[in-house]
Amino acid sequence: MSQARKQIRLNAFDMNCVGHISHGMWTHPRDRSADYTDIAYWQHLARTLERGLFDGLFIADIIGLYDVYKGGPETALITGAQTPLNDPILLAPIMAAVTEHLGFGITVNLTYEQPYLFARRFSTLDHLTKGRIGWNIVTGYLDSAARGLGQDKLQNHDGRYDVADEFMEVVYKLWEGSWEDDAVLRDRERRIFTNPSKVHRISHRGPHYQVDGIHLSEPSPQRTPLLYQAGSSDRGRRFAGEHAECVFVNGPSRAITRSVVEDIRRKAVAAGRRPDDVKAFVGVTVIVAPTEAEAQDLFAEYREHASAEGGLAHFSASVGLDFAAYDPDEPISFVKNDANNSALEAITKRSPDKVWTVRALREQMKLGSRNQPIVGSPSQVADQLAAWVEEADVDGFNLTRTVTPESVEAFVDLVVPELQNRGLYKTAYEEGPLRQKLFGAPRLPDRHRAAQFRRSWPAAAE
Amino acid sequence: MSQARKQIRLNAFDMNCVGHISHGMWTHPRDRSADYTDIAYWQHLARTLERGLFDGLFIADIIGLYDVYKGGPETALITGAQTPLNDPILLAPIMAAVTEHLGFGITVNLTYEQPYLFARRFSTLDHLTKGRIGWNIVTGYLDSAARGLGQDKLQNHDGRYDVADEFMEVVYKLWEGSWEDDAVLRDRERRIFTNPSKVHRISHRGPHYQVDGIHLSEPSPQRTPLLYQAGSSDRGRRFAGEHAECVFVNGPSRAITRSVVEDIRRKAVAAGRRPDDVKAFVGVTVIVAPTEAEAQDLFAEYREHASAEGGLAHFSASVGLDFAAYDPDEPISFVKNDANNSALEAITKRSPDKVWTVRALREQMKLGSRNQPIVGSPSQVADQLAAWVEEADVDGFNLTRTVTPESVEAFVDLVVPELQNRGLYKTAYEEGPLRQKLFGAPRLPDRHRAAQFRRSWPAAAE
Repeated sequence: MSQARKQIRLNAFDMNCVGHISHGMWTHPRDRSADYTDIAYWQHLARTLERGLFDGLFIADIIGLYDVYKGGPETALITGAQTPLNDPILLAPIMAAVTEHLGFGITVNLTYEQPYLFARRFSTLDHLTKGRIGWNIVTGYLDSAARGLGQDKLQNHDGRYDVADEFMEVVYKLWEGSWEDDAVLRDRERRIFTNPSKVHRISHRGPHYQVDGIHLSEPSPQRTPLLYQAGSSDRGRRFAGEHAECVFVNGPSRAITRSVVEDIRRKAVAAGRRPDDVKAFVGVTVIVAPTEAEAQDLFAEYREHASAEGGLAHFSASVGLDFAAYDPDEPISFVKNDANNSALEAITKRSPDKVWTVRALREQMKLGSRNQPIVGSPSQVADQLAAWVEEADVDGFNLTRTVTPESVEAFVDLVVPELQNRGLYKTAYEEGPLRQKLFGAPRLPDRHRAAQFRRSWPAAAE
Repeated sequence: MSQARKQIRLNAFDMNCVGHISHGMWTHPRDRSADYTDIAYWQHLARTLERGLFDGLFIADIIGLYDVYKGGPETALITGAQTPLNDPILLAPIMAAVTEHLGFGITVNLTYEQPYLFARRFSTLDHLTKGRIGWNIVTGYLDSAARGLGQDKLQNHDGRYDVADEFMEVVYKLWEGSWEDDAVLRDRERRIFTNPSKVHRISHRGPHYQVDGIHLSEPSPQRTPLLYQAGSSDRGRRFAGEHAECVFVNGPSRAITRSVVEDIRRKAVAAGRRPDDVKAFVGVTVIVAPTEAEAQDLFAEYREHASAEGGLAHFSASVGLDFAAYDPDEPISFVKNDANNSALEAITKRSPDKVWTVRALREQMKLGSRNQPIVGSPSQVADQLAAWVEEADVDGFNLTRTVTPESVEAFVDLVVPELQNRGLYKTAYEEGPLRQKLFGAPRLPDRHRAAQFRRSWPAAAE
């Protein structure tokens, strides 16, 4: 599927908190992430990304605390590792107000949402942003979240996806099937705001959800928001193949990532879709400076402020293992069968011949917990990104921040022009909603399963 | 409690939809309410209100449709009477971004919220607005909402308030009791973002809610948002007396409104609070112009665009009676025992000697469905407002819109200077969060029941 001048797509990856992926960076004197409660902080980020023609800003979220490491949340609190953590959804309107094209992918865990109200919230966002909203579909994984929400245990993994499938059916009905495109007339002379014959009651009675009503919002530019997903399990990939339009992948190598992307595209085809109905974004951390030497100096400087403890607090929760409980010098291969292999392998398979100990893992937490940073001159970074697109069959990147906002500014000022010079990156935004920019049309295609919930309405009578 | 130069407080009253209270106004050629999906529309409103030194903008919400009148939602759809209706919470960040002092009272029906996530959402808003957030506590009343949310019937009225009391307890624990004021250090040198010994797990196991966790957000300027409430039943007033800091009242006369306000203040005292711990706002609709004659002309012009049908669709749902099913000329006293008396009496008691028929009620729906409009010159309007404050013991007003934005602009340009000239209205904002502006301190007083959930933390050790 790769081709010579495939255009690279760029998302920025962020979270409404201090430490997101690169823990400890807030201690750097130039870092501003501790200003995350300020409107101006987010508007500056949005303007910077739009200056760099980024397709979107993806805002992560997690409900619960990282309390596996050392048996409690203390380390996450001390290091600011995704805690405190504010609501992501409220940032989109703020940033939409100062941008025109930038999209927003907002993470919401559907497990704790009422589909009827959730659908209205995203319709409202899609209206206010003129069709620039995406939803990152999450079903959750932290036991601490379940406790916070009054449940003793999370549902088992596959059961959560069954609930998610039904949730999707309900919101598709509301978004796609309740209001016809020409329902709203805004006709002052005839005093008809909405033609009621073109608004339809949704009736859903399933095992997990019962909804009987009219969608509260009129149709927004995209109707269904652009759908993102990041599940890496086999069941998660099937869900992605059936629903997602953008997937986030992380892989220890291009070859492994390619196999993941190919699997998701196969599952999309199995669901009646086309391979390129799914765009794949791989996470990257980039340290760029005008020269390689400057970039390496910057990387060393950043690493001095990195927090291995914060990284381990985060990573222990992801893997489900308290790494503080092990001898630092014992090889960690022994834990593999108890743990979330994919997160652990995303690190260990980067150097498959290395003997991985907790001590080595700890060192890797300094700016390398999620992926191996790409460090270099603009040309070197562009080489690496081009190689990922070519060899891993990804469509683009999910750029994590390090020292903020300077890491994003450096990418926009140094890497974006280099990619443009190579013909690998757009020089202007396309028009239209987020989905139109990425897929050529503002609404989901007929082959997506959401389309079956549309009414086959007759041609407009008036 | 009234005094010579009591300062009048002003809220604007709005909703994320076309027709809010004064139905049909969207058909007026100068009305812009059909632009409610635009960010610029709301930012213009916010700037106008801040120019007029309004304390707040109160954003209503209702989940469900007005489907009592004529047995279906058709009339509400045709007239745009609170349908379509978008989410209110997403408007606050947009408007906060272009204002510095204006507060926002957001309506959220707690019945369908998870307190753990709801608490984070309002903490996030309070952070982003620098302490300008209020929450209008609603427990809901439409059967259509219950159906939309998968329930066959609403809980009975008093039962809903019991659930609400427990919900309040949970969110008080999260907002007031989880993070001590000096928990967050942001100490770059010592690399301590949060001192974990000052963050406390909340454990709540009640009949309706179970929450076990740390609040996800660090303390915001107000912690608990400013609490608004509008319940008019005896149980609703008790809830207001126990929790609310601002109440909305509507009354057919100053004397009746005064008795309602006195009752709420009595109930506040019974809950260990002071009478003036609760500020009362009465709804007003104002048509103002430089002269009385111009104002009357404007009123007549507006009424030509008013929709009696939209008003009846709204009112039938409020009262729980389909007024289309009655003979237009039959006196409506006969329905009183079946209906929500307070909404009906709010109209009929304005003219207690009049024989009220459905036909008369329909005529009253044209700009008079909620309260009798105040129409006149700036001086005449100010006289009326001053009389309400004096005679009804209210603290201020909840100003509904008619033709928007010109009705709000006219109030700011004509009425506000008149009130200022009389010494009845501030000439500059006070500093600080919304609660500080209204009550002199950013946090709830110790005598409010939320205070019992604070930790009696020791003096900071570091």
